[in-house]
Amino acid sequence: MPYFDTASAAPLHPVARQALQASLDEGWADPARLYREGRRARLLLDAAREAAAEAVGCRADELVFTPSGTHAVHTGVAGVLAGRRRVGGRLVVSAVEHSSVLQAAQAHEARGGTVALVPVAASGAVAAADYGAALLPGTALACLQSANHEVGTVQPVADVADLCAAAGVPLLVDAAQSLGWGPVEGAWSVLTASAHKWGGPPGVGLLAVRKGVRFSPQGPADERESGRSPGFGNLPAVVAAAASLRAVRADADAEAARLRVLVDRIRRRVVRLVPDVEVVGDADRRLPHLVTFSCLYVDGETLLHELDRAGFSVSSGSSCTSSTLTPSHVLRAMGVLSEGNVRVSLPRGTTAEEVNAFLEVLPGAVAGVRERLGVAEVPAAAPVAESVELDALGLRCPQPVIELARAIGTVPVGGTVTVLSDDEVAGLDVPAWCGMRGHAYLGAAERPVGVAYTVRRLH
Amino acid sequence: MPYFDTASAAPLHPVARQALQASLDEGWADPARLYREGRRARLLLDAAREAAAEAVGCRADELVFTPSGTHAVHTGVAGVLAGRRRVGGRLVVSAVEHSSVLQAAQAHEARGGTVALVPVAASGAVAAADYGAALLPGTALACLQSANHEVGTVQPVADVADLCAAAGVPLLVDAAQSLGWGPVEGAWSVLTASAHKWGGPPGVGLLAVRKGVRFSPQGPADERESGRSPGFGNLPAVVAAAASLRAVRADADAEAARLRVLVDRIRRRVVRLVPDVEVVGDADRRLPHLVTFSCLYVDGETLLHELDRAGFSVSSGSSCTSSTLTPSHVLRAMGVLSEGNVRVSLPRGTTAEEVNAFLEVLPGAVAGVRERLGVAEVPAAAPVAESVELDALGLRCPQPVIELARAIGTVPVGGTVTVLSDDEVAGLDVPAWCGMRGHAYLGAAERPVGVAYTVRRLH
Repeated sequence: MPYFDTASAAPLHPVARQALQASLDEGWADPARLYREGRRARLLLDAAREAAAEAVGCRADELVFTPSGTHAVHTGVAGVLAGRRRVGGRLVVSAVEHSSVLQAAQAHEARGGTVALVPVAASGAVAAADYGAALLPGTALACLQSANHEVGTVQPVADVADLCAAAGVPLLVDAAQSLGWGPVEGAWSVLTASAHKWGGPPGVGLLAVRKGVRFSPQGPADERESGRSPGFGNLPAVVAAAASLRAVRADADAEAARLRVLVDRIRRRVVRLVPDVEVVGDADRRLPHLVTFSCLYVDGETLLHELDRAGFSVSSGSSCTSSTLTPSHVLRAMGVLSEGNVRVSLPRGTTAEEVNAFLEVLPGAVAGVRERLGVAEVPAAAPVAESVELDALGLRCPQPVIELARAIGTVPVGGTVTVLSDDEVAGLDVPAWCGMRGHAYLGAAERPVGVAYTVRRLH
Repeated sequence: MPYFDTASAAPLHPVARQALQASLDEGWADPARLYREGRRARLLLDAAREAAAEAVGCRADELVFTPSGTHAVHTGVAGVLAGRRRVGGRLVVSAVEHSSVLQAAQAHEARGGTVALVPVAASGAVAAADYGAALLPGTALACLQSANHEVGTVQPVADVADLCAAAGVPLLVDAAQSLGWGPVEGAWSVLTASAHKWGGPPGVGLLAVRKGVRFSPQGPADERESGRSPGFGNLPAVVAAAASLRAVRADADAEAARLRVLVDRIRRRVVRLVPDVEVVGDADRRLPHLVTFSCLYVDGETLLHELDRAGFSVSSGSSCTSSTLTPSHVLRAMGVLSEGNVRVSLPRGTTAEEVNAFLEVLPGAVAGVRERLGVAEVPAAAPVAESVELDALGLRCPQPVIELARAIGTVPVGGTVTVLSDDEVAGLDVPAWCGMRGHAYLGAAERPVGVAYTVRRLH
């Protein structure tokens, strides 16, 4: 039963399991105590820190362990912002950061700080020049992920780090998705990561802060972990995290090359096997194991359910799969189709057979969903009017786009269809539909209720 | 090799180990995902929450899991203080709370809040009436531990909870030391605990907030755990924590009765076997497994080292064993001797043989330390002066008290010895010495350098 959502959480690596079990016996005591159980725990902790620091590419005394990647991000962002308060209150982040970074940014805004979002191209990548232009005076901190968690696009971290260094702004790199594949290149100042993304256990994040970065931990004081991560540490998990990071790094290049072939196959085949599909994310500068595509006229939640029934676990950035009924902020920032979105992230060891099986199941799953939604080939009807307006109020994704696809044949080439919708996803998916189907998107206009999206038929 | 510091961290309970290993296979996925691995994780999480809530005595939707007891305390204190900001900024805590509570209180003060410390008796217990008197208008929150972590004294939580309810103030109970022995009685509002104190794994704290308590989580938003504990959860550890809590509760009464006999033996025997020793903490209302005593004329760190060499792992609240070279704030608040302090906290399953072996080793270890410090029976010398002043500047605990003991024979009955010391511990240990040796402590006076402590010889 293939699990293809390693970008959410990876199954435990065998080395992590082994290290965890061994350190349950050796590493339960308080490493701050001087008796033998404490000294033994201290030795384990020191060794884990050395190993993790080596993998990160920093000094051991620059690295602390936190309870999660989210804690590392929250602590890192708040610590630098407070440490550089005198410089100013401006925080620069890319528009496609992980929610933990964006939530830390929102908390900063709520405390009176300012946040600048650097936009991304349709590939999901920031342009280094755009990022550099955002580094205005008063910028206390800049944040950029090493690679995007939803579409796999690798960010130009080294270039942005150089611009940050030139501007005297520390750069925090969220390396959660990439650290298992290799160290982050470039002159970063702060780095965060999460062990359960590389096959380590849950309960461990990494926070590295380069010497010389002004850092002022927030919240109640605590002696542990250089005052940067309060609470009794989770030593068995820390040991397992460090051991598994070392293990996955040992064959990272070979495994990346292998998975890249499988992901390439998905990228190539999915557009041939499934009509009206868009593969999103950068085609070249990307994570080796992750591919994301979106299917027109498909309800993401139903598609995930169908794939789950067929034995495949994947995730989605479609609005219908989110608790807030909004599409992924990443897809939105990229301006790409969000309906019928599927993210496939292959765990290490995924076989070609598993990927082939997925590609066999996928077309039928998509077709089944479309059939249930009543999407058929639009009959070549004679146009009925120069312009048509559809009332799609109350309809949820993907219905407004399905209605649009049905209506486009009712106007002549050059005619317009206007879709009135109160589903905010339509603002993303109607333009994306136009791009995919070769029609012209003329824009959106607010109405008393909903928004009117107008499309010109081009062929 | 007996480990007698379970109040710091308990070795992993076999049930915790078993549950942890089982849930490494079943519980690594994101419980928020809808595919089968996510649903399986969600079932485990829900079951763990039900089990833990039942042990705590709350509803499952009142309980969240945090990465540690410290996180639970920090989140609980900050959340109630923010939720009740309109009521006022006063926080009431006992003087002997765990450092996580006191650090949260310091952070509150640093943000402009006020903190009232409720004093304790020499037993370490607060008087409910004192606590009630501190609940002035404008009190947003009151905190009281269920039992003290250093001396084992059980606090009058139910009485204080009634007073808090009458005053309309929510009571946060830090139940870290007692939850494995039984639920906290009384009408508490918020409860915190830590799994590794009862034999659960590290990496899990509990935070229960009764419905109706105004609670506003601080820090960046996060959907997980009702918005009260950010970051990807540590599900295998959570499952192990809940399973082991249920397991230790099953035989808690029997095991408590058994350990109480062993602790009683230590309490009785230690004062007979070791000269000049003071057992501290309430003799009756106390945790079943914990006993603390202090030895005059002994350096705590050296004593711990000697006991460790003999195979016994214990901890100490002496100043010389702390990184800040200050004595435990608990011993200080109790006004009891802090030098040569030893805390013995027995893990479940401790045998009478292990306790007997400790009692065999202890007198020699103490005598050895005293010998090395040059403490011998004071020769009965003729008094040399009515009053003597000792310059003990620069000497560290236990030396000032040793000098005092040597000098008391050099004045006649009714004469005085004044010790000039710049070791702040002397303020605690000189009066304690007087109480133990039957002399009169006349008080302290600031000098340009150091403090002068004066003692009248009574016999």
